[in-house]
Amino acid sequence: MTMDSTLDVYYEFVMGLTREAAKVITNSIKLRKTVDTKRGDWDLVTQYDREIEEIIIDRLKSQYPDHMFIAEESAGNNSPDLTDAPTWIIDPIDGTTNFVHGFPHTCVVIALAIRKEVVIGIVYNPLLEQLFTARKGRGAFLNGEPISTSEVDDFSKALVCFEPGFIKIESMAEYVVERLRAIIKVAHGIRTLGVAALTLCYVAMGAVDAYHIEGPGIEVWDIAAASLIIAEAGGVVVDRVSGERVDIMKPRAIGAANSKIADAMVKIIRETDERVDQMKNSTH
Amino acid sequence: MTMDSTLDVYYEFVMGLTREAAKVITNSIKLRKTVDTKRGDWDLVTQYDREIEEIIIDRLKSQYPDHMFIAEESAGNNSPDLTDAPTWIIDPIDGTTNFVHGFPHTCVVIALAIRKEVVIGIVYNPLLEQLFTARKGRGAFLNGEPISTSEVDDFSKALVCFEPGFIKIESMAEYVVERLRAIIKVAHGIRTLGVAALTLCYVAMGAVDAYHIEGPGIEVWDIAAASLIIAEAGGVVVDRVSGERVDIMKPRAIGAANSKIADAMVKIIRETDERVDQMKNSTH
Repeated sequence: MTMDSTLDVYYEFVMGLTREAAKVITNSIKLRKTVDTKRGDWDLVTQYDREIEEIIIDRLKSQYPDHMFIAEESAGNNSPDLTDAPTWIIDPIDGTTNFVHGFPHTCVVIALAIRKEVVIGIVYNPLLEQLFTARKGRGAFLNGEPISTSEVDDFSKALVCFEPGFIKIESMAEYVVERLRAIIKVAHGIRTLGVAALTLCYVAMGAVDAYHIEGPGIEVWDIAAASLIIAEAGGVVVDRVSGERVDIMKPRAIGAANSKIADAMVKIIRETDERVDQMKNSTH
Repeated sequence: MTMDSTLDVYYEFVMGLTREAAKVITNSIKLRKTVDTKRGDWDLVTQYDREIEEIIIDRLKSQYPDHMFIAEESAGNNSPDLTDAPTWIIDPIDGTTNFVHGFPHTCVVIALAIRKEVVIGIVYNPLLEQLFTARKGRGAFLNGEPISTSEVDDFSKALVCFEPGFIKIESMAEYVVERLRAIIKVAHGIRTLGVAALTLCYVAMGAVDAYHIEGPGIEVWDIAAASLIIAEAGGVVVDRVSGERVDIMKPRAIGAANSKIADAMVKIIRETDERVDQMKNSTH
């Protein structure tokens, strides 16, 4: 088989698993309404996380015993490095807080990297029936329809997603507040969905022009699949510091409709952070 | 006819208009992809606003010539008072910035008030097929299924929606920043959809535990329909200052799953605002 037709087989196989795994989300979101007292009980989530991992990883492993896996639950403390081997990068439930609350923005996330390059990306929110898919070189799709990033190239016209929740992390608080102020001052509007992979896909579909995601708990499985989906939709995912193409293993990411918007976001954050550093130094 | 059966007739008639009006959103969101250069062109929105108002108001007017109307586009500068007469309170497109960007959270909003009491509430997002409806005393529904607010009564477990975008308004900036910090410090998480009526309905469906909405541009049509939907789902909508049931004509609103969460939100905002006032006075 050619590489392409091998990938076709992988893709079809994993799409089947994705749809099956997503049923766990749909069914447990409904179930939660009768076990409301469990709300906020993180063991509950872990149970569904594990259920989904079992559906996806166990079957991929028995189908492709020589493949590697990087996944949220299994990762534990010794998250494997990304090698040249075919590697499945999986988040069984992205947007766990949303999942716990029944906020209908949560998804199954699967990427396949070969020679450290993401070649398949799948992000599926079964609650609102949003299936984002991409294959390297073959475009990006929402429910089978081609998608592309927006044509907004002026930051003052941009709709930006951002996670102010990181204000909770004391060492990040001042940076997050000042970044938020700076973005709101210039941009068209600000939104927060609280789910990294899905929000990156909103960039891919042109609904959002930029998204900055970085902080404790944000890992390779949050951005691997969606970074391919954005790229195939004509957008970019860059490193927040260097402004260069992001290293998915170091997810301090800015997803953007195009490099003009990405550059503007990198600049606004860099300048804001410098101002915060100066303020912090002057009070010491 | 009894009052109830009269309302049945009103409800069926307006539901038909709502579905027809929503097609304008669905079709123009798709259309936008071919007229991308118009993005950010507010005249475009106004055109669709007007199209929807025509579908809804013109037909309601000819069907019920003695009814009153309060609607975003027609309101102009002399927004009519709410009288005892049957009054339709309409926002043809709530979430206009979202609509312009194709961020799929935008809706048609219709309420009917009789003797100043909202008796019918409809909030419909056709893009994600979310139809929220309520009739006074008859419960609240999402796509025909009964909904209820969450059972979260501890603010530290609450998922809260909030609009940091009002930081743009200079006189509000410090209050908004400090409210945001205070909420994030305590609550489980923070989200922003940028659309008042739909976010209030997220409270009604139990996906969000509290939402604070207040600022320039927030008017009676943003909260009238959803305030009935929340009430019928078991929640409350209170005045941010008094903590009492909100006066829909003075929309400085907190929608909440229950009065415990509403009280917590009123308190956190009051205390934060007092701190900001003190800071402002001390620097004068």
